[in-house]
Amino acid sequence: IVNEFPAIQLYGALRRPGSCREEDGTRAVEQLPNLFPLFQDIQVMLAVGLGLLLAFLPRYGLSALAHNFLLLNVSTQWALLLQGVSHSRLRLGLHNVLTAEFAAVTVLISVGAVLGRTSPCQLLAVAFCEVPVYLASEWLVVTQLGVRDVGGTITIHVFACYFGLGVSKALFGTERRPAHPKETPTPRSDLLALVGTLILWVFWPSFVAAPCQPGDAQHRAILNTFLALSAGAVTTVVASSLLESGGKLSLGHLQNGSLAGGVAIGALADVPITPAASLALGSLSSLVCLLGFRFLTPFLARRLALHDQCGIHNLHGLPGILGRCQLSHADGSGVAGDLWGCGGGRQALWQVAGLAVALGGSLLSGMLTGAVLRLSCLAPPPEPLCFEDSLNFRIQEQA
Amino acid sequence: IVNEFPAIQLYGALRRPGSCREEDGTRAVEQLPNLFPLFQDIQVMLAVGLGLLLAFLPRYGLSALAHNFLLLNVSTQWALLLQGVSHSRLRLGLHNVLTAEFAAVTVLISVGAVLGRTSPCQLLAVAFCEVPVYLASEWLVVTQLGVRDVGGTITIHVFACYFGLGVSKALFGTERRPAHPKETPTPRSDLLALVGTLILWVFWPSFVAAPCQPGDAQHRAILNTFLALSAGAVTTVVASSLLESGGKLSLGHLQNGSLAGGVAIGALADVPITPAASLALGSLSSLVCLLGFRFLTPFLARRLALHDQCGIHNLHGLPGILGRCQLSHADGSGVAGDLWGCGGGRQALWQVAGLAVALGGSLLSGMLTGAVLRLSCLAPPPEPLCFEDSLNFRIQEQA
Amino acid sequence: IVNEFPAIQLYGALRRPGSCREEDGTRAVEQLPNLFPLFQDIQVMLAVGLGLLLAFLPRYGLSALAHNFLLLNVSTQWALLLQGVSHSRLRLGLHNVLTAEFAAVTVLISVGAVLGRTSPCQLLAVAFCEVPVYLASEWLVVTQLGVRDVGGTITIHVFACYFGLGVSKALFGTERRPAHPKETPTPRSDLLALVGTLILWVFWPSFVAAPCQPGDAQHRAILNTFLALSAGAVTTVVASSLLESGGKLSLGHLQNGSLAGGVAIGALADVPITPAASLALGSLSSLVCLLGFRFLTPFLARRLALHDQCGIHNLHGLPGILGRCQLSHADGSGVAGDLWGCGGGRQALWQVAGLAVALGGSLLSGMLTGAVLRLSCLAPPPEPLCFEDSLNFRIQEQA
Repeated sequence: IVNEFPAIQLYGALRRPGSCREEDGTRAVEQLPNLFPLFQDIQVMLAVGLGLLLAFLPRYGLSALAHNFLLLNVSTQWALLLQGVSHSRLRLGLHNVLTAEFAAVTVLISVGAVLGRTSPCQLLAVAFCEVPVYLASEWLVVTQLGVRDVGGTITIHVFACYFGLGVSKALFGTERRPAHPKETPTPRSDLLALVGTLILWVFWPSFVAAPCQPGDAQHRAILNTFLALSAGAVTTVVASSLLESGGKLSLGHLQNGSLAGGVAIGALADVPITPAASLALGSLSSLVCLLGFRFLTPFLARRLALHDQCGIHNLHGLPGILGRCQLSHADGSGVAGDLWGCGGGRQALWQVAGLAVALGGSLLSGMLTGAVLRLSCLAPPPEPLCFEDSLNFRIQEQA
Repeated sequence: IVNEFPAIQLYGALRRPGSCREEDGTRAVEQLPNLFPLFQDIQVMLAVGLGLLLAFLPRYGLSALAHNFLLLNVSTQWALLLQGVSHSRLRLGLHNVLTAEFAAVTVLISVGAVLGRTSPCQLLAVAFCEVPVYLASEWLVVTQLGVRDVGGTITIHVFACYFGLGVSKALFGTERRPAHPKETPTPRSDLLALVGTLILWVFWPSFVAAPCQPGDAQHRAILNTFLALSAGAVTTVVASSLLESGGKLSLGHLQNGSLAGGVAIGALADVPITPAASLALGSLSSLVCLLGFRFLTPFLARRLALHDQCGIHNLHGLPGILGRCQLSHADGSGVAGDLWGCGGGRQALWQVAGLAVALGGSLLSGMLTGAVLRLSCLAPPPEPLCFEDSLNFRIQEQA
Repeated sequence: IVNEFPAIQLYGALRRPGSCREEDGTRAVEQLPNLFPLFQDIQVMLAVGLGLLLAFLPRYGLSALAHNFLLLNVSTQWALLLQGVSHSRLRLGLHNVLTAEFAAVTVLISVGAVLGRTSPCQLLAVAFCEVPVYLASEWLVVTQLGVRDVGGTITIHVFACYFGLGVSKALFGTERRPAHPKETPTPRSDLLALVGTLILWVFWPSFVAAPCQPGDAQHRAILNTFLALSAGAVTTVVASSLLESGGKLSLGHLQNGSLAGGVAIGALADVPITPAASLALGSLSSLVCLLGFRFLTPFLARRLALHDQCGIHNLHGLPGILGRCQLSHADGSGVAGDLWGCGGGRQALWQVAGLAVALGGSLLSGMLTGAVLRLSCLAPPPEPLCFEDSLNFRIQEQA
């Protein structure tokens, strides 16, 4: 067998029982019936759910769906290739693909900050830059610092958020962009985006549970995530009707706030916390997310000229930091410390360091990426053609 | 660990192998890989499938989706809380969440009767009233009377239907509402509703199989439900083209009739019946459902001024009663009687009593709930603003 | 128990452990938790994903969804009945239903060639004719010739493609149809079709893995299919922007090309090939598919007056043949030959024979079916009412 793919061996390990993933003490093949449905759930989330959620711009739905799909595939393959290069004899399995998909998630989140104002080439450049940075950051935070982050609250969500904000800042500079006439969602595009939210909401427990140890930890992760998401959804409706005039809901709030609980719970989903704590964390995350949309995003746009099209700072940044703080609190009160065989204090200190690394490193590398994106060879779209599918697709004239 | 949630303990049981759900003789953790995919399927049905099906009103799609989502979450949490109160030391697991979701299903079905003419506060009041009544009814019918109802034909569908009709009757009184100008579906809203139907149709076997014993019973439930749904879909197309003039299909028929087989088969899905019986029951249910839409709903609206917006009586009431009768017949002919360790006759008598209790109690409590909904503090929407998203959502003006 | 369904026995086997599917050495019941999620994935693909993909015609979406749904059910039941007749005492299980669904898939693919220009009666006639021919062809190719085709590349995709082209040719004859004014997709219908593509793309690995032996073969099938699809998606975007003027993507390319990798990989999905081979095959398939859309379809329409509405020849025919050639190559180089306990050469010869049988037989039987479809009692739609939902549905007037 000619091994053409760099250092990725044929799935031979799968035919030698017990030889694969010995570090887990479990056979990959035995886990397949358990893992594959979770993998499919995550695929639905990323390709369909996230794609539809990004399709809230009425004339940019096709581009949002297609670019999301393109980036998902390019980033996953790029992450697989980098994994293959960094390990001398990698045996490809569903676990590797899942890890590579998590790398792709960071790209999909980050580009939300610049949605509609970027060309496919620029998006591919983001994928090219962000995946290796993510892999390095994840290695540093999880492998070196031992930060516990099963749901990717810090390594994925907070990292991707600040990377994306860095890209946006460096790309758009200090000019304040006025609201674009094509930016306003219509009821129809909002409806599809809401369906996307619901798909993400339904399958989020799979996203959090997939990297967990099968058994109790996975069961806890599913339940905690479900409770946080459920509480977050109710809080979003209540809080949005209070924040908006006339008690009417904002669809942007509903589309994003309902998911904030899932972001926050990731850091401590498999920790045995009480149901009440999950519910409270979910509610609080959604509240923070909505307050971010109402007050922080306009403030940042006004003061820092920071452009955040999808509000990724509100959905991924703030709830991620909140979840991280909650975990420190759980550590501090000794709930989970002894589970990890190390003192809660030192663990908490390390995790704060991890957060600082993720935050600073991602912001910096995002800004460098954003500077690259200013290259004219990447074909940035002219301002009047932003948010417009006809820039990217051959739209046939109606006969 | 501070136990803040009333009487719901930390998932401790999950860490003590074998201590949980001993009544089943199986460990919850062992069942997790089996149960979780079914749970996710049901979540998709309720959040996405049912939401889209209710979005058939062209200007009320956002409200239908969002209210369905809100009620799903509020009712599930409310049912979990009531479970926690009623059991002294409940250990939260995926089984409990599933049970709570079944309670939420009744609310989602019932409010179909008053879709578009109610405010979110009124809907929350329905959820607040219906969940405890459902839990009491389910305890009476299943635990006390020993009625066999794995797919919730009686306990969920028939109960929810008559509760909803009671709400509608008491809320709207004797005035006959003329057809609202915004009530007519458009091809576009019908398309999304049809997608919702297809999602419900695909995952219905999971809904019926989830509460079954893993193994043969679950396999039978899946196959019987699939056959009933498949036969029902074909019957719906044929019957609708015969009932409508010019051989054209009615989309309302297609959206509802395709699912009637799933409602009816619930009562006897895990009973070893022949494939032909499943197919026949599915066909018959769809036929009854369509005849209901064509003749009974207009008749009830004319004679009793009974308002049933989504036709829940045709989709949940009539097929549910049909499935129940079919089960009596199966009992009477001794097919399944000996499986249950009791004579078919007494069992059938009990089940008829259960049906009467579910019917009478749900209608009465529904009417009481409907009377509560007339309170002006629940902000009933004015008639001209019914079926209108802009009442509930901040719709942004197009630039 | 009266056994009304011809020769399909009650699921008695499921209650006698070990007695069922002994030829596999595994119990059906044990495989249920493994198989059922795959089955549900396939159901979503066929009912929702394929239905939405076919809804790319702006005024024919309802018909496309509904006809697809009707044909899925009728064909599955028809195939189950034929299975029941051909086996003396068939025990119905999920495996049988899955086999019957594969028969239905061929019908759903074939009618893509004549989408929009056929009446429901004509479509039912196709289902009635194609299912027995498929079962015979599958028996000949797989059982008699021993052709290895786990993902149905030849038995399903190539067969269905040429059957459908035969139907189209015999039905429409030699007249060249000009482009119909209602044929042009709108951005909105393209968006829904793209969602359909994404659903098919996500669940395609389940379609290929379902018939595989659980364990290593299934794991390989999942990984190979995922890699082929992923590479195909990226290739599609790149190649489409090169093929179209101005670097703009064609949505038809994206909707179909992204899936071509899944068609091609089916023939050798469970064979241990390198990841690079899967990626290369996926890329090549998408490229061939796009070239087919760009050059071959117009050529065939011009020269042979061959009408292929959905381009099934590009999505199912060409990639299927490509996958088949790739398998021969893998055989020839001895990679997989010894796995099958037979020489690669004879195997390859048999497989070429199988391909010829599938191609010739399907084309011929398709043309016979197409001739049947010309009967006026099947109510072919008049040309001006083609591609028009109002022909099939009662569309209510807006008030």
